[in-house]
Amino acid sequence: MSGAGKIMLVGIGPGSVEHMTQRARDAIAESDVVIGYVTYIKLVADLIEGKEIIRKSMTEELDRAVSALEAARAGKKVALISSGDAGVYGMAGPTYEVLFQAGWTPEDAVQVEIVPGASALNSCAALVGAPLTHDFCAISLSDLLTPWPTIARRLDAVAMADFVVALYNPKSGRRTRQIVEAQRLFLRHRRPDTPVAIVKSGYRRRQNIVFTTLDSMADADIGMLSTVLIGNSNTFVRHGLMVTPRGYANKYDMEEGGATREGEKAGRSLSTGLLGWLETLQAEHAAGDSVELLAERHRLPADYIRATLEEPWEATEAAATEEGEA
Amino acid sequence: MSGAGKIMLVGIGPGSVEHMTQRARDAIAESDVVIGYVTYIKLVADLIEGKEIIRKSMTEELDRAVSALEAARAGKKVALISSGDAGVYGMAGPTYEVLFQAGWTPEDAVQVEIVPGASALNSCAALVGAPLTHDFCAISLSDLLTPWPTIARRLDAVAMADFVVALYNPKSGRRTRQIVEAQRLFLRHRRPDTPVAIVKSGYRRRQNIVFTTLDSMADADIGMLSTVLIGNSNTFVRHGLMVTPRGYANKYDMEEGGATREGEKAGRSLSTGLLGWLETLQAEHAAGDSVELLAERHRLPADYIRATLEEPWEATEAAATEEGEA
Repeated sequence: MSGAGKIMLVGIGPGSVEHMTQRARDAIAESDVVIGYVTYIKLVADLIEGKEIIRKSMTEELDRAVSALEAARAGKKVALISSGDAGVYGMAGPTYEVLFQAGWTPEDAVQVEIVPGASALNSCAALVGAPLTHDFCAISLSDLLTPWPTIARRLDAVAMADFVVALYNPKSGRRTRQIVEAQRLFLRHRRPDTPVAIVKSGYRRRQNIVFTTLDSMADADIGMLSTVLIGNSNTFVRHGLMVTPRGYANKYDMEEGGATREGEKAGRSLSTGLLGWLETLQAEHAAGDSVELLAERHRLPADYIRATLEEPWEATEAAATEEGEA
Repeated sequence: MSGAGKIMLVGIGPGSVEHMTQRARDAIAESDVVIGYVTYIKLVADLIEGKEIIRKSMTEELDRAVSALEAARAGKKVALISSGDAGVYGMAGPTYEVLFQAGWTPEDAVQVEIVPGASALNSCAALVGAPLTHDFCAISLSDLLTPWPTIARRLDAVAMADFVVALYNPKSGRRTRQIVEAQRLFLRHRRPDTPVAIVKSGYRRRQNIVFTTLDSMADADIGMLSTVLIGNSNTFVRHGLMVTPRGYANKYDMEEGGATREGEKAGRSLSTGLLGWLETLQAEHAAGDSVELLAERHRLPADYIRATLEEPWEATEAAATEEGEA
């Protein structure tokens, strides 16, 4: 075979063809070789007839990347498929690591393209309601490549800071205590009745969705194909839908037809937004409150409080035009 | 018009038609009415000819949801379009809030469907390399609906816990100091040369990508259409690509052809994974180290250390079959 080879890292989304992007379909269609974990190969079976197929087991990520590079060096177009998004705990990282190791650069004859897709957190969220309407994190509970203290520190930090959290790789046949430890860390900061949704095989034939709460999470049926979504302190479940409010109730009176609350303006920062908060901070400090007291009251580090107090802010900022946003 | 109405919350991805899912295209095709922010309406102009179009400004999310419900109650099929994913800071949340307020339940004649798509973090990551190969967070710097101390606490927590972070709504004409404060909070925990990528209008006509570092981040050209990606402590930029290693180097000797490191096994948890770490912890405690000393050494809360020490772990766990994972 002649001509330059290409490696396309293709995120196929949750697994049903209709939730795949056009570019993902096209990338698979134009490939000579398709490489992937056996389960993912099955999900795109209809699209790969007549192509060379290289099936790999779950732990052979680096092998998959090496095989892709070999085929591309031989002039072939290779689709390296990941479920969800190729960049989210997917093949994009290991592939670049292998390519760099082999001396590849972007000037190389072998081209690389990453085709983004909806990750598990996007598709699971769509199935359970609207849990990701506010700040969120993804944490993998797999300790096959990550030391447990690193994972535990992350769980602790985001539980404390009230993020919505998606747990990837929550449990396997061998790894059963990680989810128990995650629950333990979360319960230090969050209410026991915090809503939790567990989505197994979302948008696939065996899709299964369970709603539970933080204190019962570890007893639920969770496996390798599950994603666990833990709400923040405002997340609620109503009529079987998990919803995290965006914060409209901070600005608008939702009961009263959406009138703006006193002191708030549509299209402007909240009165407790950055500039309003800096004003409050300066007033409190001027009234004699110490930096340490302010740090405790606002639950932020003292040296951060001190630094913001020291930097004057320009009142003119507030006069600039707002393009508008939520 | 007769028949039951439907509201479809459609995530159109980054904006180019080829990165939209088939279901997103189909949902728009089968709709009678398309509602969205003017910019998003322009992005799908080719797909909506002949349909009723309701253009809304950026701050009118609740209005968009109310209009959608009115049209659906009149028996129309409505596509409420969001850029990226409809569930990630998108219209899914506000829509359910408005529907619940109006007494809607899933048994209502008006059906609701959420169509997931690639969010800004997925598409920006694909354009800059492979930054999301390990745990990550999304934080919106907009204080229009969220008090600044909430945002600041989240920035502080994830900077400390070494997440890769995607900043949404980093800056606007009026909101210019939020990114400076975010930088200040990050620099308390992260190296000044931490890689940062700023992606503006990814996959759109005016796409612009800038690589910078944490200490220069606030001086970069950032606007309403930018997403800011901040790496973790292992993220590097090589040949113009931002990559976060998955952790293979913890288990394999990447220089030596990928041989497994001493004490590590392919397909098994790291020696510093949960069970190995618990063993270490118990040995250190048995040797006389206090809970407080262990907490400081492992940088985890003392009460968490105490609780894990108190719970015995079953050696039999290690004998279960591993399906394999990364």
